[in-house]
Amino acid sequence: MNKPLTITFGALNEAIGTEFRVAITPESSARLLKAGIQPAIESAAGLKSGFSDADYEAVGAKILPREEILGRSDAVAYISLPDSSVIYSQAKGSFAIGLFGSLVNKNAAQQFESAQITALDLTLLPRQLSKAQSMDALSSQASVAGYKSVLLAANEFNAFFPMMSTAAGTIKPAAVLILGAGIAGLQAVGTAKRLGAVVYAYDVRPAAKEEVLSLGAKFLDLSAYGCPDFSAGQGKGGYARELTAEEKSAQQAAVDKAASNFDIIITTAQVPGRKPPVLLTKAGVDGLKRGSVIIDLAASALGGNVEGSRPELTIGTENGVKIIGAPGLASTAPKTASNLLARNIADAITHFLKDGALTLTPDDELAVLAISGVKKTS
Amino acid sequence: MNKPLTITFGALNEAIGTEFRVAITPESSARLLKAGIQPAIESAAGLKSGFSDADYEAVGAKILPREEILGRSDAVAYISLPDSSVIYSQAKGSFAIGLFGSLVNKNAAQQFESAQITALDLTLLPRQLSKAQSMDALSSQASVAGYKSVLLAANEFNAFFPMMSTAAGTIKPAAVLILGAGIAGLQAVGTAKRLGAVVYAYDVRPAAKEEVLSLGAKFLDLSAYGCPDFSAGQGKGGYARELTAEEKSAQQAAVDKAASNFDIIITTAQVPGRKPPVLLTKAGVDGLKRGSVIIDLAASALGGNVEGSRPELTIGTENGVKIIGAPGLASTAPKTASNLLARNIADAITHFLKDGALTLTPDDELAVLAISGVKKTS
Repeated sequence: MNKPLTITFGALNEAIGTEFRVAITPESSARLLKAGIQPAIESAAGLKSGFSDADYEAVGAKILPREEILGRSDAVAYISLPDSSVIYSQAKGSFAIGLFGSLVNKNAAQQFESAQITALDLTLLPRQLSKAQSMDALSSQASVAGYKSVLLAANEFNAFFPMMSTAAGTIKPAAVLILGAGIAGLQAVGTAKRLGAVVYAYDVRPAAKEEVLSLGAKFLDLSAYGCPDFSAGQGKGGYARELTAEEKSAQQAAVDKAASNFDIIITTAQVPGRKPPVLLTKAGVDGLKRGSVIIDLAASALGGNVEGSRPELTIGTENGVKIIGAPGLASTAPKTASNLLARNIADAITHFLKDGALTLTPDDELAVLAISGVKKTS
Repeated sequence: MNKPLTITFGALNEAIGTEFRVAITPESSARLLKAGIQPAIESAAGLKSGFSDADYEAVGAKILPREEILGRSDAVAYISLPDSSVIYSQAKGSFAIGLFGSLVNKNAAQQFESAQITALDLTLLPRQLSKAQSMDALSSQASVAGYKSVLLAANEFNAFFPMMSTAAGTIKPAAVLILGAGIAGLQAVGTAKRLGAVVYAYDVRPAAKEEVLSLGAKFLDLSAYGCPDFSAGQGKGGYARELTAEEKSAQQAAVDKAASNFDIIITTAQVPGRKPPVLLTKAGVDGLKRGSVIIDLAASALGGNVEGSRPELTIGTENGVKIIGAPGLASTAPKTASNLLARNIADAITHFLKDGALTLTPDDELAVLAISGVKKTS
């Protein structure tokens, strides 16, 4: 039933620091083998995701030393952009695939190009292409981050999410506000609803309202806080369009006002390759109740959705609010995140396997993923 | 509408180390004032529970220095047994009320007695007395701990709790086993069900089965793992009776076998004043899947329900299992826990207020709470 094995596809141990994920899992290995691709994994690469070397070998993947994987694989899968020394250790003419963030990592393309590697950046995937949905790693990882953002908030919060009736009286449910109702935001809405919170969400894209309501949550009406309607908020590629300076400031003031009614605020507004928009200013944070918890999924070195957030840090304000900068939450549910990401990667690499070899032609509708190699010649 | 204020009821700042709770909240202050009791709170006592001094003053509670509270209050509320220096600082003839754990803290009664304080230990509350339900602090705090145990587990777990269908395929739900289906266990069952996990629970008390099933979870059938039926498992006071050595060992072996089918195990079996029973041995832990998470709510210096658990510590085993000893989880949702506990305490102290004075007579059905004072004379 399996095709004959024609190419080798490697993955390294990238689980360092706050990164726990792995780009090929035992499950995706089985899929790859069926497609005629031999997975080769660096020892211990899957341990933090819950996969031992034996788990890989049991399905037919090989455990090989790092140098061998880099030097002999036809393609190597990466979670994120590797160091240039890694790129230059790959065999010339081989492929690389992963979440390279080439819109932000400006010299990624040039590095792969000069190492003569054909690099496929999954962050460039056209999200509205139905064929590409099973390869949409940004979405799958955003979904994990959205789920974990609510668990993190509920775990940090000083009270219950659900309403409870006890012998000693009733406990009010938590009021949760999700800003940005994309993949991560909607997953956060669903998870907070599961936990019994009162959930509101907001997004500048009008299409988001339907989706929020369909999950049983409420759509925050910013007009009640003096903000005009942004009726044409949908931008390119399914992301929110960028607002004008005036629109931004009206939105910020209204969100700041509205926020004081909530115990938990989760912000999820990201635009690839751009500084995230500020959705909650210092004035908004200062207006929150003691004990409120903010999770900023867009926290970055350039700033996030919340003024004062810092990536991977929890900051306590003077008025007793916790601001948690959490850009890497997908990695905190590494088994689920790796399984999803590895399926995305396996589907993508299989797409480029034709007649026993990796082939990338300029007329392929997924040729837009290539940041080096074929792209130069197209 | 309020009665005239006749007695003063104090609470200190006990929020030290892993203790975040406070024994009187703004909400319970309002109740106390209606009953004719003046609350007096040490500055900053409620901060970690989300209550500022101003929040207390807004409802009519007084913020007073520690010495004044101890020296002038008719009664002082405590979360846990205070240092003897605190006990001796209370006015002679005054009352103390709190979770003193006098079954374990053997010299508690003697200390209060020699300081001439009438101490009411809420851990002695007869749980089956319907009148006392609103004073049942052990239950209210166990309920908070049960809720938080699931959030902690879900946050530490490497995968999703709910089943999910995504473009890249389906994610299996987590399998959760709750050992001990008392107040904490049932709250854990309910919370894990909310989060979409597949939930099993087990308890030696036959009555627990109904309750587990009514929450939509399954009751673990240990007979499938070679364990006999303990059909008379219900002991005194609503707690499980102690099993014989043979029964214990049969139960342990069966639980150890069953456990390997689960991702998350939460143990909640406590018997007041006794060493907690071991429910999962080292053999059971060794049989778990890589990535499994154990939360032991009974972890104590004397041992817990899980071999190898340590209070307030997370231990990673060689086979990739996390054992989290979490005896103090109520304190990690301090606002909810304090509000419930403070209501319990307010109801209890109000019970003893008669004609403007605290009165404890031997014929009072709650006289069993007294570990010093009236009890000596009864």
